[in-house]
Amino acid sequence: MKNCLMILFVAILGSVNISNAQTSDSLTIRKIYDMSLLNGKSYAWLDHLSNEIGGRLSGSYNAQRAVEYTKAQLEELGLDKVWLQPVMVPKWTRGEREFAYVQTGPGETRNVNITALGGSIATPDGGTKAEVIEVQGLEQLKEYGKENIKGKIVFFNRPMRADHISTFDAYGGCVDQRYSGAEEAAKYGAAGVIVRSLNLRLDDLPHTGSMSYVDTPADKRIPAAAISTNDAEYLSGMLKIKKDLKLYFKLNCEVFPDVKSYNVIGEITGSENPDKIMVIGGHLDSWDLGDGSHDDGAGVVQSMEVLRLFKEIGYKPKNTLRVVLFMNEENGLRGGNKYAEVARTKGENHFFALESDAGGFTPRGFGITATNAQFDKILSWKPLFEPYLIHYFKRGGGGADISPLKDGNIVLAGLIPDSQRYFDHHHAANDTFDAVNKRELELGAATMASLVYLVDKYGLDNINKGKKQLKD
Amino acid sequence: MKNCLMILFVAILGSVNISNAQTSDSLTIRKIYDMSLLNGKSYAWLDHLSNEIGGRLSGSYNAQRAVEYTKAQLEELGLDKVWLQPVMVPKWTRGEREFAYVQTGPGETRNVNITALGGSIATPDGGTKAEVIEVQGLEQLKEYGKENIKGKIVFFNRPMRADHISTFDAYGGCVDQRYSGAEEAAKYGAAGVIVRSLNLRLDDLPHTGSMSYVDTPADKRIPAAAISTNDAEYLSGMLKIKKDLKLYFKLNCEVFPDVKSYNVIGEITGSENPDKIMVIGGHLDSWDLGDGSHDDGAGVVQSMEVLRLFKEIGYKPKNTLRVVLFMNEENGLRGGNKYAEVARTKGENHFFALESDAGGFTPRGFGITATNAQFDKILSWKPLFEPYLIHYFKRGGGGADISPLKDGNIVLAGLIPDSQRYFDHHHAANDTFDAVNKRELELGAATMASLVYLVDKYGLDNINKGKKQLKD
Repeated sequence: MKNCLMILFVAILGSVNISNAQTSDSLTIRKIYDMSLLNGKSYAWLDHLSNEIGGRLSGSYNAQRAVEYTKAQLEELGLDKVWLQPVMVPKWTRGEREFAYVQTGPGETRNVNITALGGSIATPDGGTKAEVIEVQGLEQLKEYGKENIKGKIVFFNRPMRADHISTFDAYGGCVDQRYSGAEEAAKYGAAGVIVRSLNLRLDDLPHTGSMSYVDTPADKRIPAAAISTNDAEYLSGMLKIKKDLKLYFKLNCEVFPDVKSYNVIGEITGSENPDKIMVIGGHLDSWDLGDGSHDDGAGVVQSMEVLRLFKEIGYKPKNTLRVVLFMNEENGLRGGNKYAEVARTKGENHFFALESDAGGFTPRGFGITATNAQFDKILSWKPLFEPYLIHYFKRGGGGADISPLKDGNIVLAGLIPDSQRYFDHHHAANDTFDAVNKRELELGAATMASLVYLVDKYGLDNINKGKKQLKD
Repeated sequence: MKNCLMILFVAILGSVNISNAQTSDSLTIRKIYDMSLLNGKSYAWLDHLSNEIGGRLSGSYNAQRAVEYTKAQLEELGLDKVWLQPVMVPKWTRGEREFAYVQTGPGETRNVNITALGGSIATPDGGTKAEVIEVQGLEQLKEYGKENIKGKIVFFNRPMRADHISTFDAYGGCVDQRYSGAEEAAKYGAAGVIVRSLNLRLDDLPHTGSMSYVDTPADKRIPAAAISTNDAEYLSGMLKIKKDLKLYFKLNCEVFPDVKSYNVIGEITGSENPDKIMVIGGHLDSWDLGDGSHDDGAGVVQSMEVLRLFKEIGYKPKNTLRVVLFMNEENGLRGGNKYAEVARTKGENHFFALESDAGGFTPRGFGITATNAQFDKILSWKPLFEPYLIHYFKRGGGGADISPLKDGNIVLAGLIPDSQRYFDHHHAANDTFDAVNKRELELGAATMASLVYLVDKYGLDNINKGKKQLKD
């Protein structure tokens, strides 16, 4: 009986402590959201990045301007350290605007909205003109074989599936066509590749994105481009009634030697554990067609905002908090790799990294790569997020730039915004500032800051590992 | 021990049953979402309603065209019954476009974006020109008193609070200025009223909406209009440096005698309980500035889609399912009142009503007015919604049109879409088709259909009441 009473007593004490902690935490989190929504800076930063600078392809002047602008802004926040981390990045340029048409007969042509894929070679000076063979995916190349493909333009037309609830799942189911289409089609002697844009809507905007020739010899490489979903529908329809129609396209891309660029880094040094590091970030580079507001201007300014919010509400993290604005996520991931390489060389202890690179839409939750115990610990904070309609804590996730930090100990997390509109804008000319809603962007920044606050305060020690250490 | 085994056995059986039911339900719900996302009709219906018909103010030709169009579309679905329910509605017209300017000195004027509030009288033929007194709310009128207000234009400028997470809460905190501003200001002898638009963004669009003079005598009524948030900021700033500036505005509204209109109703008669009725709906009328795509074209087509989805997947509801497209939600609620009045007269048994009238954005969940037991029953279905990222089940809610059905037994529910962008468009010229995302609209329709399916299958008997009846 005595034991029972004792247990009860301890349990009550424990719940009182939890309850007090939760009240204090909920007040801090309320302050974070209020500051972001009432006196946020993320939207003004994004306005500058998008409208005064614009698209920021790696190796471009604009990418350098973005480095200088964000570094200056971080310096104004009064962080403990701000620095540039040099990294060599690829320099690929689009050149003059691309042009394409379908020819169905003598003089009968229709223009097609086209954009070169990032990394593609140019077409010959006179362009590429050939018959078209439509396939629904890489695996269909084998089925058709060299005899049907040689000398033709391969048209990858498998659409994104509308029945996926997360549009990222739909993207994941199609992106191989864009990334590997040219590499694979070249093996069958294709003259070029065009890919249906990775967009769930039917519209006239071609969506670019990275592709790779991997180890295809230079003389075997073929040009690769994306056409709009409306044009993909048109072309597919025409091919049904006229199999020998020809497509003409002209790309003017060029590859230059690598260029020196930078990750932009700012730090609030931890008050108790300066050697334990939390990283938050997004990528500073973007494609060149729009101004990169959703991908990933939003993630950049939200990450900067997390540090500003802590400064403004007077929260001093116990652990070191770094914002890293990664260079070259889109066509190389050189920034992410460089950051992880330097961290390893220096023997730095990173225990948490959070990336925002899924658009500036209403935040819904986080994807988290962690042990079960760590995930459960984060899940125990869920009630603190519910007043902000953050309900979704998903196992698995993170971000491309922070993925090279993965080492079996670090917890990786990615902000999950609402994904429904993301691919309407992704890598296209309409990824622009007007497509970002101020409140949605600010809610995302506050949601990130709230998670970082809890991680900093309560830690993410691997509980299993901890137990083992206690036994030792 | 035997008892324990028995209990265990029953518990396992029970969980197997629950698990089988959940599997069958999850398959049906998957079918519903697939049908809506892959072969939905809601977006095409909305396209017609918005682009071929347009704004549908009660009593207008467009409202009548919307009645005829939606009735014809429901008839094509092969429902058991489709009919029109007559209802007399107010007819208020905006007339020629409104005009307003601020005069800061001789010849120094700046035009102001203005729109009459629905129900307002016109200004005199020559317009109204007077000094302006800015207030932050109805209660401040008393503070200033007749001596400061008489003959002036009262400018209600309390902004929507950005720190509310639900923008509807922010709206609720300000809408009294729009609805009652003229009634209250008239008591102090004001010459007119202008209200800061109910919008969280700073932009140039004035937002209309209903107002009421209540029992203000006709000769004491004063004209009332909304100005854009940018103009509200400008005017407030100017008033700080020039207290005696004058505002001119001209409204051309007119009130006509009531007009006969209709609720549009379609029904799938229940296969087991034809006398037990579930209602789903939205309102067919809209304001006239945009085309009413979000408010409430979205709710109309989503509600129609629920019945179509059931037809397509071959689900025959046990209870009667009615879609009601209510007329005159915006400036009178006559349709909602008429429907409830007829239902009561006929002694109809409505046990569930679901409205969609919060925009066609990504669905997040439902607001539910029910007993605790009923709410808990609905909450037990939450796992079935989680694959669709529907996480939010909130106590309280429903919709204006279904609220007159409230009788202590019926469960009222409202679809809760993401609210962040809603008031960017609400009652303004940019509430248009292009602001609605196809997938978000379709997800909303499927989410509604899934709840209706579960309510139909498992019922919503008030469990407390049920127990009592067992005892009797």
